[in-house]
Amino acid sequence: MKHQGFTLWLTGMSGAGKSTVSDMLMDRFRAAGAKVELLDGDVVRTNLSQGLGFSREDRDTNVRRIGFVAELLSRNGVIAVVAAISPYRATREEVKAKIASFVEVFVDCPLEVLAARDVKGLYKKALAGEVGNFTGISDPYEAPLNPDVVVRSDRETVEVSVDRVWQELIHRGLITA
Amino acid sequence: MKHQGFTLWLTGMSGAGKSTVSDMLMDRFRAAGAKVELLDGDVVRTNLSQGLGFSREDRDTNVRRIGFVAELLSRNGVIAVVAAISPYRATREEVKAKIASFVEVFVDCPLEVLAARDVKGLYKKALAGEVGNFTGISDPYEAPLNPDVVVRSDRETVEVSVDRVWQELIHRGLITA
Repeated sequence: MKHQGFTLWLTGMSGAGKSTVSDMLMDRFRAAGAKVELLDGDVVRTNLSQGLGFSREDRDTNVRRIGFVAELLSRNGVIAVVAAISPYRATREEVKAKIASFVEVFVDCPLEVLAARDVKGLYKKALAGEVGNFTGISDPYEAPLNPDVVVRSDRETVEVSVDRVWQELIHRGLITA
Repeated sequence: MKHQGFTLWLTGMSGAGKSTVSDMLMDRFRAAGAKVELLDGDVVRTNLSQGLGFSREDRDTNVRRIGFVAELLSRNGVIAVVAAISPYRATREEVKAKIASFVEVFVDCPLEVLAARDVKGLYKKALAGEVGNFTGISDPYEAPLNPDVVVRSDRETVEVSVDRVWQELIHRGLITA
């Protein structure tokens, strides 16, 4: 596969499916021999943002750091896949403005479904007020106004979601089939 | 020029000449059409490590973050040039162990010469006790025991230093002439 450097940024609430979608995308990129790196929440919190919390300021700092690294990779021909809640629209836009090729994927899922799934038990705690600064409950999630791809994990399989992202990348000339 | 991805890590005290050497190396890499990125103290403090101070713990965190990004770039075929005081040997070794191709350059200069040059006026203040946590005076600088290249900015021109680094990279097969 031939590809350009670009950043594929998945934003969405906790449990919406960002990791599931990005992991399958990574498998597909790697199988195609692409130069690709995953910057997900855990990797970044460990390696770039240890000590930061979940205040707006700290979340923004975290998102800017991810953006800095994604830009470095992208401009050197690497695909940077980012999976991060990145709840604030202005901060996402700020990062987007600095990266030449940026594709925003909104991993959407209604709060009711997230709270019912609650894989990590966090929504129950957040709804009970036991966890503060929780995106979508005690903290805002500002959905993208004009995302390049919207993935609805409650309505489509991950295979379908991944394929729609893939088609968008082909359509933009960022990868060849 | 053909090249592999690798990390060229310049360590040394403030004012020893890390930026001068790395800037000239960057010019030479870019003129040769290499994929190369400079991670210097200022860039990193701004983009990755804002809020960190100069305690041992904070310096180590800063160095590990630079190492994380340098490794990401290196493994994707990019040359990462790092210019950072990185005063602690164990932390440099820890980073080195994680990067497949790592070349350590010790930018050496005697303290007397640094204090006499004192481009930023920092040595005077540090020697007067007005600046704390100052590497080489109130904080340690642990020189590499077995650096790949030693640059002596008080004894050789920057052109000579850069050329010696360049020859080492050719010798290792990391770049072609």
